[in-house]
Amino acid sequence: MILLRSHIGSALRASRVLQGRTLRDVAKSARVSLGYLSEVERGQKEASSELLLAICNALDISLSEILNNVAITVRISEAPALKVVEDAA
Amino acid sequence: MILLRSHIGSALRASRVLQGRTLRDVAKSARVSLGYLSEVERGQKEASSELLLAICNALDISLSEILNNVAITVRISEAPALKVVEDAA
Repeated sequence: MILLRSHIGSALRASRVLQGRTLRDVAKSARVSLGYLSEVERGQKEASSELLLAICNALDISLSEILNNVAITVRISEAPALKVVEDAA
Repeated sequence: MILLRSHIGSALRASRVLQGRTLRDVAKSARVSLGYLSEVERGQKEASSELLLAICNALDISLSEILNNVAITVRISEAPALKVVEDAA
C-alpha cells in the first residue's frame, strides 16, 4: 500500500540530511517536538498541514518542492515494472 | 497559509465533479462516510494516508496524479506574483 505519509516523511528526512542538520535542530526551528518530527520522518505519524508547513519552513524549502519530490517517489512506487521486480524478489 | 489538506481536497473534488459523480457514490465506493468525504474535499479534515488512497481508488485515479495536480496548485499559491494580486484585491 502506497502511503502518502511515508513518502512525505522520506522527502523531509532527505532534505534535512542533505542539509546536514539534526532532528533536534529542525524540530526546534519548526517548534515541534523531536519525537513528533522523528515519527513524521519515519512515516509513523500523519503531519497536520500546519505542522508540515512549519517543518518545510524550518528546512527552508517550499511545500511544492516537497510535493514534487513526493509525487515522483509515489509515481515510481506505482509503476507496474517495479511491482514485477518486487513480486519476483 | 498554504494548507496541503485544502489543496488535496480541491483536487479530489475536481476529479469527482469532472466524472459527474456524487459525494454519496464516491463515499460508498471508498467506504468512507459522506460527511468525512465532504469535510476532506472542503479541506476541513486531514485525510489519513489510508483513506486518501481509498478515495483515489474510488475515483480511479492514482495518488501520484492527485499529487501532481496538488503540487501545481500549491506552486501557484506560492508564486510571489499572485500574492501581489491577492494583496491588491
